[in-house]
Amino acid sequence: MFKFPVLEIFGPTIQGEGMVVGRKTMFVRTAGCDYGCSWCDSAFTWDGSSKKDIRMMSAEEVMEGLQAKGGSRFDHVTISGGNPALLQNLSELIDKLHGQGIEVALETQGSRWQEWFVDIDDLTISPKPPSSGMKTNWQVLDSIINRLADSGRLSHTSLKVVVFDEKDLQYASAVHQRYPKVDFYLQVGNDDLAEADSASLAGKLLEKYQWLIDRVMQSDMLNHVRVLPQVHALVWGNKRGV
Amino acid sequence: MFKFPVLEIFGPTIQGEGMVVGRKTMFVRTAGCDYGCSWCDSAFTWDGSSKKDIRMMSAEEVMEGLQAKGGSRFDHVTISGGNPALLQNLSELIDKLHGQGIEVALETQGSRWQEWFVDIDDLTISPKPPSSGMKTNWQVLDSIINRLADSGRLSHTSLKVVVFDEKDLQYASAVHQRYPKVDFYLQVGNDDLAEADSASLAGKLLEKYQWLIDRVMQSDMLNHVRVLPQVHALVWGNKRGV
Ligand code: SF4
Ligand code: SF4
Repeated sequence: MFKFPVLEIFGPTIQGEGMVVGRKTMFVRTAGCDYGCSWCDSAFTWDGSSKKDIRMMSAEEVMEGLQAKGGSRFDHVTISGGNPALLQNLSELIDKLHGQGIEVALETQGSRWQEWFVDIDDLTISPKPPSSGMKTNWQVLDSIINRLADSGRLSHTSLKVVVFDEKDLQYASAVHQRYPKVDFYLQVGNDDLAEADSASLAGKLLEKYQWLIDRVMQSDMLNHVRVLPQVHALVWGNKRGV
Repeated sequence: MFKFPVLEIFGPTIQGEGMVVGRKTMFVRTAGCDYGCSWCDSAFTWDGSSKKDIRMMSAEEVMEGLQAKGGSRFDHVTISGGNPALLQNLSELIDKLHGQGIEVALETQGSRWQEWFVDIDDLTISPKPPSSGMKTNWQVLDSIINRLADSGRLSHTSLKVVVFDEKDLQYASAVHQRYPKVDFYLQVGNDDLAEADSASLAGKLLEKYQWLIDRVMQSDMLNHVRVLPQVHALVWGNKRGV
């Protein structure tokens, strides 16, 4: 029986981003990341600041934690991080959820492969653009996308790139052209992580969203795409655990 | 060669609602509706106020209109109304779009069947809740969903219910329970169609969105669902043609 480093279990709430935006879901947030993005909105998962809150939990205990919060009011669980793809034995949790008829979504930046990727119902690969300060390992990313394609999983997979500026947008175009068969999402970045006033944050995020829409509409390299805000940030601002 | 009553061709812009929210798309808005919803946000398509703007266009002419506005910057077209399901010969347009590698989305309230429903890539059936003042014909709706299921089209189909109040929410639950296998979207209603200030409208819509999220999260009848705002209304308010 494997134990996972868990930082938060919360919900039900909505998924605020990406391929199943709006989906009623529970969240399990795992600790640890192999990246350190400049604008990471969950830096507490890897910067040591929440180290004392990490609980080592078995799949069984995670399941109990989910049921304690969500009762019978959910059928979908999102595993987020950090980078949950660091956890080799996550299939123990995924299988247990599937056994209860619960769908599983997961997001990772695509820095490493895990066999259990092929079991995720809604898999988001989110390579990080230049503004993050991180460098994409294209060989690893190619191999992840190829393996998912070979396993017939592309209908359960999406690519998502967060965009803060023109350079990020160029990066997004490059990703989309490299993997044209994978559903592609552009997401407006939130670099106002200190803004405590939700209404004022929503106004700024909507302005940036409009900028991103305008830029994508002008491009003929970005046609088969979806452009989304983080709807949870529009509603709850920078609050955690909602 | 059939001609269709067209009121607007515009884009590229994003789809603001439902199953492909955020998708880069062009819009073709057809005139005419068999309903008269109290809060219809496109009443000009059926109330006579824009009668003089209706152009009778062939599929070829619609295609030219799309290319004139969108150039090579789109691969998706949304046919909206009014109720485009009133147009029996729409397959002429759908086939032409598909012939150019363009995907087609369409929304209808589900008041009547058309054979070409099975050719739509993203088909939204949006039955109207009590607040609309309209009455759902369940026999017709049953038969539409059954035909789509029999044709193996449920993966291209979604149900969407706009919710203004508690009664609408009960109606939404009833629809979801009647058709549990169809992807289900709840959308927050906009009853502020006269509000000209986009920022103030966005604030009100986000408040209502939060209310709808809270209500859905409390329910154990609404689990396999997605809850969304109209993102175009958040960005552009009540402006037309964006
Ligand atoms: S990959 Fe994700 S969790 Fe890791 S540092 Fe970047 S944004 Fe944060
Ligand atoms: S069905 Fe749609 S277009 Fe027709 S009146 Fe109702 S909201 Fe308006």
